[in-house]
Amino acid sequence: MDKKKNISMAVIKRLPKYHRYLSDLMRNDVDRISSKELSETIGFTASQIRQDLNCFGDFGQQGYGYNVSELYNQIRNILGLSKTYKMTIIGAGNIGQALANYTRFEKLGLELKVIFDINPKLIGIKIRDIEIKDIDYLSDYLKENTIDIGIICVPDNNAQKVCDVLIKNGVKGIWNFAPVDLVAPENVKVENVHLSDSLLTLTCLLNDIE
Amino acid sequence: MDKKKNISMAVIKRLPKYHRYLSDLMRNDVDRISSKELSETIGFTASQIRQDLNCFGDFGQQGYGYNVSELYNQIRNILGLSKTYKMTIIGAGNIGQALANYTRFEKLGLELKVIFDINPKLIGIKIRDIEIKDIDYLSDYLKENTIDIGIICVPDNNAQKVCDVLIKNGVKGIWNFAPVDLVAPENVKVENVHLSDSLLTLTCLLNDIE
Repeated sequence: MDKKKNISMAVIKRLPKYHRYLSDLMRNDVDRISSKELSETIGFTASQIRQDLNCFGDFGQQGYGYNVSELYNQIRNILGLSKTYKMTIIGAGNIGQALANYTRFEKLGLELKVIFDINPKLIGIKIRDIEIKDIDYLSDYLKENTIDIGIICVPDNNAQKVCDVLIKNGVKGIWNFAPVDLVAPENVKVENVHLSDSLLTLTCLLNDIE
Repeated sequence: MDKKKNISMAVIKRLPKYHRYLSDLMRNDVDRISSKELSETIGFTASQIRQDLNCFGDFGQQGYGYNVSELYNQIRNILGLSKTYKMTIIGAGNIGQALANYTRFEKLGLELKVIFDINPKLIGIKIRDIEIKDIDYLSDYLKENTIDIGIICVPDNNAQKVCDVLIKNGVKGIWNFAPVDLVAPENVKVENVHLSDSLLTLTCLLNDIE
């Protein structure tokens, strides 16, 4: 795994897609696949695939292809999926509730432990047996319980404040759905889902074809 | 706008962020900003900013900075936001309902016209006055009404089928939330929000710091 430190952000961003496709291949009992065949399904060029996969080990064998399960397991390890993660959602609005209702993440080893909100009407309610607690209790909760990933679904003007509380209490991963760019120290990892930005990328592309 | 055709996907992906920051500056009555100052707020390097903004016109003036409103309007145009868009959501599950409840998009000129679902319990219900219709009626609806953007929130095994119906009926923009990569012709633009991929990017980064 020594090679891992050299993996660029561009490669990291492609890894979940490899993971998705390889798990499909595993489900379909495919043992081996060439970079050319993988290229046809996944949509990256064969040379791109060879280059990406070379970053973290020597899996391909000339004229023989990749061992699917070995490659899958290696990518799973690099994605950190040999561990489990405890998550909290802060903000039980539309997106927060939608994410709380997702069961897909649990299958990957990511467990939602608790939800926080400021709205008295929501506090005490359970979503899939997961309680919505008062946000005032967030800091205390984090002192008593280990949380690996905080999912920020609060309005933009409160996002940094929530982020600061999470970081101060040792949360190392922030999944941010608020349409702001959060400030966090180097040792805290922030991944953004900026829905408006994504939609505006689409209008930009649409505008281009006319 | 002739320069626009040369804008790379990497720059396009950064434009919504410029749009966000420039609209903040407009709200705060900032008239001019240097690439250095913009760099400090937005987090791109000053040289990156100069290079990006050069792609679509000559806005900077040495020692004087950018005219915020001119730059904002130009980026707004390039993002296609001088037009309006009609949207439909297909799949009124967790994410579909969350998106239907968003009002942020309307302010940008993106109007949700109708929602479709397969579930009889949901058909006929309204979300913010927008009706959930039977998915069987999707094709007929699209023949009678212009829709610019189809938002796919159905389970992965149905996503391509829905995508095909949208494309067949002239929808040119697909905003895809299903965790699959859709096949679409060149003249149809697909923008993906792959939530699991985003979360796995985060676990990958977390795994790296330990």
